[in-house]
Amino acid sequence: MINILFAAHADRWAQYEQPLTTALDALELDYTLSTEFAPEEVDYIVYAPNSDVQDFGPYTRLKAVLNLWAGVEGVVGNETLTVPLARMVDEEGLTQGMVEWVTGHVLRHHLGMDAHIVNPDHRWHPEAPPLSRDRPVTILGLGTLGLACGKALAMLGFPVTGWSRTAKETAFPCFSGDDGLHAALDGAQIVVLLLPDTPATHDILDAEAIARMAPGAVVLNPGRGPLIDEQALFDALDSGHLSHATLDTFRVEPLPGEHPFWHHPKVTVTPHIASETRPDSAARVIAENIRRGEAGAPFLHLVDRAAGY
Amino acid sequence: MINILFAAHADRWAQYEQPLTTALDALELDYTLSTEFAPEEVDYIVYAPNSDVQDFGPYTRLKAVLNLWAGVEGVVGNETLTVPLARMVDEEGLTQGMVEWVTGHVLRHHLGMDAHIVNPDHRWHPEAPPLSRDRPVTILGLGTLGLACGKALAMLGFPVTGWSRTAKETAFPCFSGDDGLHAALDGAQIVVLLLPDTPATHDILDAEAIARMAPGAVVLNPGRGPLIDEQALFDALDSGHLSHATLDTFRVEPLPGEHPFWHHPKVTVTPHIASETRPDSAARVIAENIRRGEAGAPFLHLVDRAAGY
Repeated sequence: MINILFAAHADRWAQYEQPLTTALDALELDYTLSTEFAPEEVDYIVYAPNSDVQDFGPYTRLKAVLNLWAGVEGVVGNETLTVPLARMVDEEGLTQGMVEWVTGHVLRHHLGMDAHIVNPDHRWHPEAPPLSRDRPVTILGLGTLGLACGKALAMLGFPVTGWSRTAKETAFPCFSGDDGLHAALDGAQIVVLLLPDTPATHDILDAEAIARMAPGAVVLNPGRGPLIDEQALFDALDSGHLSHATLDTFRVEPLPGEHPFWHHPKVTVTPHIASETRPDSAARVIAENIRRGEAGAPFLHLVDRAAGY
Repeated sequence: MINILFAAHADRWAQYEQPLTTALDALELDYTLSTEFAPEEVDYIVYAPNSDVQDFGPYTRLKAVLNLWAGVEGVVGNETLTVPLARMVDEEGLTQGMVEWVTGHVLRHHLGMDAHIVNPDHRWHPEAPPLSRDRPVTILGLGTLGLACGKALAMLGFPVTGWSRTAKETAFPCFSGDDGLHAALDGAQIVVLLLPDTPATHDILDAEAIARMAPGAVVLNPGRGPLIDEQALFDALDSGHLSHATLDTFRVEPLPGEHPFWHHPKVTVTPHIASETRPDSAARVIAENIRRGEAGAPFLHLVDRAAGY
């Protein structure tokens, strides 16, 4: 009997109990799934980093922690965790959702939609936007999400440039390392942040980085709030060097009502919806990892604890 | 010497003179390009249907009329025109621009962007939209533009259904004929109108057709204004059966300031910018057709005068 602890807020349990049961049953595993076990009886934890479980010490027979989301910054530094940690890579749900949000907001800014959606003076000003081939887009972060978004944007004709910490094989031009960051941003008209939240990525979009983008550029941040130096962003929006920022992730969430992001006319806030784990497909990923653990096969999507993601 | 008359408004001449010269030179044609000729000396007319040339009778040696745009409703019924008429099919510019506009506005409505762009109460309401696979899109009209848009939307995961007057081979499910129209609209959540403007397509989106769409559906009209029965559209928006209409084409353009489309909260007006012929690529299409005419080869993109497009 495999004991699987579901450690996340109660509303998540309501979303996940049935999909997890379905996915585990489909793999014919002999298991008990519950939100309550004696710690020493737990084999796997399906985990949200903001759950009550913060000390893994008492979980003496634990085989793996399976994170419900892609971001693991809330658990990766937890020194009481000594067993494998897997992050969520949910191609069907999470990745697809991110591709849709990024493609949609890139096209929104590319087409200048806001001027038509909000047009109180009813101006008829028939100036067609440039074509996608004349709108360079740069993606910082080429994990599963960044690569999938780059592929979709390239299919729509955008000249895509990527950047990642370590060099990657990509279908579009790509820079890497500290030296490559500014080169990747040179002349970019739309920049998409899809880096993980690690000490090395904090404030990576600072004044110097922003200065490399084309005048009037747009920033999209569906990655993580700390990637942006907020003061540098405001300065660039106010000077006009950046024309807009559309932000989905924040240092504090929900974004406090008094935060200037809510009030700045060149900022759009979306409430951390760019990519949600979808219970049905995510449950299948978790069940597969439990099957692998029981079969002695390598876990999928393991976190590199030293790199932090 | 081939005499090519450019018959369109003066601002078009400013846009096209150089690109046409470049494209014609590249094909090594021996030509004169001008906005003024004696009619009996003209071999080809590069044509905007709203130009001063409305009587083709005096153009006694005319070989073909080459339309600057895809829509030919302003010339196809002209009985003085007896030589071949080609419409513009500008894959590089016009088709690509349409794909970008359609994909962008489909994603805008799919993601519910407007609620974030216009959010005066600063609501943080983190509900992720469904994935594209759960958002059926129907495209009416499967010419070059409709097929290209369908392909792009299918690549992004939307279940696309098409409809055309005559049956077509498509990569997505497709209906045809009067009988198929309502079946194609059944349960559609987003409907894109890309039909030509002919007597058979006037008011094709009427109350009965709208009733077949899913509750809360959205209509996009980058095609032609007369495709929509405006009263039926307003009734469906006011009843809530349709949640929004984003319109790029109108019966009268520019859309008059007093038209209710400007004032309806569920209507977005874009000023006929979904797809513009781009001078560089369009000039190459026109030059190629002149080369073909001179070589005795069949013209590209000929209009079927009986069908009206």
